[in-house]
Amino acid sequence: MRLRKIKHAEEQLADHPEVVIANSEDHRGSWKALFECSGPIHLEVGCGKGKFVMAMASIFPDWNFIALERFDSVLIRVLEKWLLEPKKNVRMIHGDALDLTRMFGPGEVSSIYLNFSDPWPKRRQEKRRLTHPNYLSKYRQILSPKGQLILKTDNDRFFCYSLMQINEDDHFRIDRLSLNLAETSWFNIKTEFEERFETQGQPIYYLEATFIEGD
Amino acid sequence: MRLRKIKHAEEQLADHPEVVIANSEDHRGSWKALFECSGPIHLEVGCGKGKFVMAMASIFPDWNFIALERFDSVLIRVLEKWLLEPKKNVRMIHGDALDLTRMFGPGEVSSIYLNFSDPWPKRRQEKRRLTHPNYLSKYRQILSPKGQLILKTDNDRFFCYSLMQINEDDHFRIDRLSLNLAETSWFNIKTEFEERFETQGQPIYYLEATFIEGD
Repeated sequence: MRLRKIKHAEEQLADHPEVVIANSEDHRGSWKALFECSGPIHLEVGCGKGKFVMAMASIFPDWNFIALERFDSVLIRVLEKWLLEPKKNVRMIHGDALDLTRMFGPGEVSSIYLNFSDPWPKRRQEKRRLTHPNYLSKYRQILSPKGQLILKTDNDRFFCYSLMQINEDDHFRIDRLSLNLAETSWFNIKTEFEERFETQGQPIYYLEATFIEGD
Repeated sequence: MRLRKIKHAEEQLADHPEVVIANSEDHRGSWKALFECSGPIHLEVGCGKGKFVMAMASIFPDWNFIALERFDSVLIRVLEKWLLEPKKNVRMIHGDALDLTRMFGPGEVSSIYLNFSDPWPKRRQEKRRLTHPNYLSKYRQILSPKGQLILKTDNDRFFCYSLMQINEDDHFRIDRLSLNLAETSWFNIKTEFEERFETQGQPIYYLEATFIEGD
């Protein structure tokens, strides 16, 4: 994503503590207290401009959504959407996926979404990929039993890498897989990226894995 | 594959017992005795017209290749290739993959190739897919420790199905995966199908899995 430097992004986010949660670590284990409804917590790691999370929140009013984004200049776009149409079941965190286990307690998250994550294609960047074993380990620590990890991407190499890592991890079972999501009839909310890729005829790769008890 | 009815295919195959092995079950556990060289046995399940197996046999003269095909009118094409250029490290079986464990003893096969297998797309045909758990179980029974299962296909749904079945099987570890084999620099002998698909811009999906000791 091209990042425009946005002046005072940090200040703007800080102006809305009702939806942009500062000191996220203080809420570890008690995120549900921030929501009106006690529904499951769905977390998008790297929410970009927020189209996905905002649409999901409309369609599933009984679920709670947390949008995590490490760029404040991007998260501000989600905040703008939210201010136009505030949703009680959406909260945002300006933070890094590296800190997930400090932000969320064991089993606190029902579903994790990785939408068009940065593929970090170079070998020396492998550890940054959001499906590196180090990240999968973090997801396992915060997902509830039978929680889901749902990934889509246009990048075939990142998809293969992710499949192989998830395949190696005994605690995840791959339940659904498509190499052309548009061809399926599965429920799907498109992100900003996805709409663009689709008009270019680029297939979208998709997988759903379930967190299961290991051996 | 479009099948042309070939007159007397069976008789033609029977005329060449030096390469088309009848009563394959009699050789269970002793296939190496049929080859000059004691190299590993590589088996192509559904060899089609045989371009792949014949090319592999040229490139790897120290390996032994067995081409299994259930249609005699197709296997005759492999025999024709072989007669033009006989290879000591190639044998053929006119037979069905259902009988693999009757044909081969435990650990007798080093590598199994599934090239552009029939995807059997309908749900009620699932059991016929060569990556159905029943077939994976047969492969495990005949593969040597660390033996390989190597699959390529142009069919995205068959590929996803295969990935999921192999992912579920604790005795296979996926080592390599590509959603566009032509983009990789991996060693690859193209089949007749593959050349046609490639000129149509259709990606070839590829995976390599290793047979490992289970828990």
